[in-house]
Amino acid sequence: MPVPELGRSDSTFELKEIELPELKEDQVLLQTIFFSNDPAQRGWIQKDQDADRLYIPPVRPGDLMLAGALCKVLKSTSASVKEGALVQAYVGWTEQAVLDAKAVTSLPDLPGLSPSVFLGALGGPGLTAFFGLKEICKLEEGQEIIVSGAAGATGNVVVQLAKHVFKASKVIAIAGSDDKCEWLKKIGADVALNYKSPSFSADLAQAAKPSYVDCYFDNVGGSILNACLSLIKKHGRVAACGAIAAYNDRSQTVLDNWVEVIMNRITVQGFVVIDYYSRRAEAIDVLSTAVKEGKLSVSGGETIVRCTEFEKVPEVWMRLFSGQNTGKLVTQIADL
Amino acid sequence: MPVPELGRSDSTFELKEIELPELKEDQVLLQTIFFSNDPAQRGWIQKDQDADRLYIPPVRPGDLMLAGALCKVLKSTSASVKEGALVQAYVGWTEQAVLDAKAVTSLPDLPGLSPSVFLGALGGPGLTAFFGLKEICKLEEGQEIIVSGAAGATGNVVVQLAKHVFKASKVIAIAGSDDKCEWLKKIGADVALNYKSPSFSADLAQAAKPSYVDCYFDNVGGSILNACLSLIKKHGRVAACGAIAAYNDRSQTVLDNWVEVIMNRITVQGFVVIDYYSRRAEAIDVLSTAVKEGKLSVSGGETIVRCTEFEKVPEVWMRLFSGQNTGKLVTQIADL
Repeated sequence: MPVPELGRSDSTFELKEIELPELKEDQVLLQTIFFSNDPAQRGWIQKDQDADRLYIPPVRPGDLMLAGALCKVLKSTSASVKEGALVQAYVGWTEQAVLDAKAVTSLPDLPGLSPSVFLGALGGPGLTAFFGLKEICKLEEGQEIIVSGAAGATGNVVVQLAKHVFKASKVIAIAGSDDKCEWLKKIGADVALNYKSPSFSADLAQAAKPSYVDCYFDNVGGSILNACLSLIKKHGRVAACGAIAAYNDRSQTVLDNWVEVIMNRITVQGFVVIDYYSRRAEAIDVLSTAVKEGKLSVSGGETIVRCTEFEKVPEVWMRLFSGQNTGKLVTQIADL
Repeated sequence: MPVPELGRSDSTFELKEIELPELKEDQVLLQTIFFSNDPAQRGWIQKDQDADRLYIPPVRPGDLMLAGALCKVLKSTSASVKEGALVQAYVGWTEQAVLDAKAVTSLPDLPGLSPSVFLGALGGPGLTAFFGLKEICKLEEGQEIIVSGAAGATGNVVVQLAKHVFKASKVIAIAGSDDKCEWLKKIGADVALNYKSPSFSADLAQAAKPSYVDCYFDNVGGSILNACLSLIKKHGRVAACGAIAAYNDRSQTVLDNWVEVIMNRITVQGFVVIDYYSRRAEAIDVLSTAVKEGKLSVSGGETIVRCTEFEKVPEVWMRLFSGQNTGKLVTQIADL
């Protein structure tokens, strides 16, 4: 996959310098520290994306690229947001921004943790893992689950929660390298399989049979989804959470096992975490308790890339699609 | 698609003559009158079918081909089954059979209707339509629905029930000929589209937009499933009931819109009617009331093929896969 280059006529991204406005009442001037890199951003910029079919307004040519971030408050005219505080905001790919104070979210206090965990295990990916397991997979104690993209931002939290919090009897994790698989076994996977191995399909079937699995937490779509459809129990469930295998090549999703969905009465449920934001406190409670009890390790679950040239921000984001990173991929553009 | 020929080394079917046993206590000798032809039978004979993944024991080489049928009782040693009665039984493709009396089901009394309707609108296809709409689509008054395979045994009942019993505000029916579409409009479809038309995709999108539809009752899978995934409302539903487009060529199900399932939080639920047999009385009540009230027409909903040579039974069944018939395809091998 080509890395986007700036300044070419077919570049996806362009660098712009703009003048920031003066702060009005109840506004903040923010300095971005960390960008969140999310596969979902690929959908937001899909060419000719139908706005009706997306859960946020799509990013159109000329728009600021949308992204979640952690920012330091440089100036504030709001009583509720203090200068120097670290806050969460959808500033997009920008170094500094002026926002209304009500558009930023203060971070909960979790001593001893890097604030970047609020983009990963205790942020969107952590919430996705928790609500995906609870509401979509409906995972119960003693059940068996397959997780793909297991070394990714959401996947590694799924593995840990499934094993240590939901108490699954078997967690089968799928990732793209032997090193990732080793790590996944350390954090809770009973079986970890490298999908690039020539024996992957046979190994996966052997791991899942003879009992088959109760659910599949799908972060990748494509051929792995197809393989898993044959390995889900009668009346089992699929949480359709991501399809990173298909975002850049939609012809990847050939489901020649589709008939399994019918014959085995499988339920496949698409899922976007924003539907559960109103229940964020419930998830943060479970996740932070799991961290304190040593059931959720956040230290190995993020890759922070320091980006000294702002032009490289898209290139770092693209690592999501080549499987280079482990856990949550965070771009840091300034010091804390 | 080649029609199966008997007597060749690669024939799917072989004709066998066997000696029937004498009747023991509580048994019946049956003469088959009507065979039910069902797309599901294709799955039951799939080569190397994994028995774990099928909801009935698969038919293996040498086994009697499984099929539902209506039969006349020629002899009975049971007090509960009278000679001369018409009963429903899974006799398989056979002219006569000896069964335990408890393996046959008496037919309810519905004066004025051909008994063959108990294989169609008031049999498995009717139950599939009713429970699919009620439990899988969860169709409510005023909602919009797309139905594929709409001129088939299940599809035509879906169209009629959706419009006249569940009171959908819009029923979009998909079938394979202009004649079928004309008929579907007569029995309740607001829009009927021929999927062989060059403008089909555009016509379908236009019919479904701008409101999109609440659910899709999928009898065909393949490219029509793919097209429909883009036309289902946020949080909408797909009843995965059949995949006749894919039974004989599994590479047909290329879902290049799979990302729509995620972004629009669509639920796809596989479905086999046998799970609802214990609630059969509820469905029969709704269906027979609909017949009496003129909301469900059964006369146009079946194609009966008289088969004087038993060798032609597989050939008639194969019509299911070439779209030749309208409504329930019934094979008659003897007079009533």
